[in-house]
Amino acid sequence: MRVRKEDGAGGKYMMDFIKQNIVSRFDCRINEISLGDLEDSTDFSENFLLTTDSYVVDPPVFPGGSIGSLAICGTSNDLAVKGAKPSFMSMSLVLQDGFEIEKLRTILEDMERWAREIGVKIITGDTKVVDSGVGVIINTSGVGVRNEYLEKNLGVLREYREYPYSWVRDCGVVDGDVIIINGSIAEHASAIMVIREGLEFQMDVKSDVYPVWMFLKDAMNVGGISAMKDPTRGGIAASLNEIAEKSGVGILIEEDAIPIRDDVKSFCDVLGLDPFSMANEGKVVMAVHPEMAEEVLKALRKSGQKDAAIIGHATSEFSEVVLETSIGTRRILPQPVADPIPRVC
Amino acid sequence: MRVRKEDGAGGKYMMDFIKQNIVSRFDCRINEISLGDLEDSTDFSENFLLTTDSYVVDPPVFPGGSIGSLAICGTSNDLAVKGAKPSFMSMSLVLQDGFEIEKLRTILEDMERWAREIGVKIITGDTKVVDSGVGVIINTSGVGVRNEYLEKNLGVLREYREYPYSWVRDCGVVDGDVIIINGSIAEHASAIMVIREGLEFQMDVKSDVYPVWMFLKDAMNVGGISAMKDPTRGGIAASLNEIAEKSGVGILIEEDAIPIRDDVKSFCDVLGLDPFSMANEGKVVMAVHPEMAEEVLKALRKSGQKDAAIIGHATSEFSEVVLETSIGTRRILPQPVADPIPRVC
Repeated sequence: MRVRKEDGAGGKYMMDFIKQNIVSRFDCRINEISLGDLEDSTDFSENFLLTTDSYVVDPPVFPGGSIGSLAICGTSNDLAVKGAKPSFMSMSLVLQDGFEIEKLRTILEDMERWAREIGVKIITGDTKVVDSGVGVIINTSGVGVRNEYLEKNLGVLREYREYPYSWVRDCGVVDGDVIIINGSIAEHASAIMVIREGLEFQMDVKSDVYPVWMFLKDAMNVGGISAMKDPTRGGIAASLNEIAEKSGVGILIEEDAIPIRDDVKSFCDVLGLDPFSMANEGKVVMAVHPEMAEEVLKALRKSGQKDAAIIGHATSEFSEVVLETSIGTRRILPQPVADPIPRVC
Repeated sequence: MRVRKEDGAGGKYMMDFIKQNIVSRFDCRINEISLGDLEDSTDFSENFLLTTDSYVVDPPVFPGGSIGSLAICGTSNDLAVKGAKPSFMSMSLVLQDGFEIEKLRTILEDMERWAREIGVKIITGDTKVVDSGVGVIINTSGVGVRNEYLEKNLGVLREYREYPYSWVRDCGVVDGDVIIINGSIAEHASAIMVIREGLEFQMDVKSDVYPVWMFLKDAMNVGGISAMKDPTRGGIAASLNEIAEKSGVGILIEEDAIPIRDDVKSFCDVLGLDPFSMANEGKVVMAVHPEMAEEVLKALRKSGQKDAAIIGHATSEFSEVVLETSIGTRRILPQPVADPIPRVC
């Protein structure tokens, strides 16, 4: 038996691969979150979370950013969706012998810029050079810290109901919670696809890579958020299905409410790609207590996320993720087996 | 300009590359240790240290271990040499499409075995699959924790002199400190070299990969250790030079006191390799207050390190690392420009 591309592509196959090979061996719980919970980061003390990501995106520099932007934003985002402030980071470079220093500088400039923007500090690192095949691979591991915005969020939520978790958890959603996304989908994967395949599509699409902490802290300062996920590999289809499964609720999404640019939608239609399972790098799907949903939406918009929208709600009527069109037809949005585009992050 | 192999090979060229490209952009200090101090791990709070390493060893399974053993032991060792207990770890796999599952299992078994031995918990991870060229790359980032052995060590040391640091630091050595190594050198790099090059040397050498925490905790429980480094890429030549430079002292080493197996020595002689700049994966060079050196040596031997030896001492007479032979001739052991063997860890 051999490793397949799908085993690392963010969907159901990857989940199965990880459960069989990793969780079965290493599962443990130090504080509240276990490895087997497969959340975006894991707490190792009352105040600290750890996360890791190796970035293998091809090409390493693309419209809207680079592997450097991903390495800082992506790892920060995995902390931010638990409600943690992205605070400390390691960076590990694996470079191919002969890699252009000029390109490396562009990548490091992106890392520097985004690290400063977020206020995350790179405190330790490692550099390896190998002879072939990798271009550049960057691993960033991040430590997130408990903070006042998280406390505020949980405090407000607990005015309405019990919430037995000390971080924002994938399993925290209940019947009636409102589902919000902060903007339009499928742009990161589309930008990578356009540049990599040299497609003659006249589409000026950029990666949406962005540190979600910048606006999530304002949303948490309003409060009432019960779950958050950043829909990277596997897109919103993967994130929504994970939330539904872990929380034990169904999710009803109004298909027409999901923000997507017209040209991105046409691009996906023409290529037969499903935008719901395509990667984003600056998006969050979140569940919010219904009483607080409009306020959270306002905070997101005020914080620069002008296309933020309510796209559905959690329901106990069924246990799947269901898409409803404007004329009332319904279909299940399944957990994707894999992201349709390889080496996207 | 392009990246060169030497830029990731653990010697002077790598240090220059890191200072120019990484430290110049990202240097910061959260607690006591700064990124620019280039120590093996960095503290981000009073009680926690972070470190990271990406392992690219070729071949991934070798006599004495695998990339999995390295990923757990190597990252643990970077925490242990600061006096921290290796406690939590992330693991990030980058696998080549088609990589054999059976080989992956061997690697994961090694990770499981060593993680259990040390008591380090893998709490979060990431899996990517790429189409070519990497085989397997593993990043482990580790969190180390302040502990009773470290406190004991620092307490004993401070009975003799001032030691203004709260971890065991590369810069902590003063005139007169005794230099100890826990066993024989150059075995990891030799084992990799023999198997990779298919050398017809009839040498049964295995990698020395081992978690140094297992015996360092006993040495610290005796106390008086002022600096520790694990001599991986660049070997003991790199580690001793880093200690000398950061501490601002010279180091005099009795060449004949350095433990090395006869067959490893012959192997290096024949191939023109310098064993002092070849990688080890289960060794520590440490500096110890002279009053405590014999006790620390005894503790190391009792803890299974039967070839542990005093190999020299720090001196203010000069500022280099100097090798002295049994007949009294002296030569400088310079900081190597690079490890002589690529992809060794």
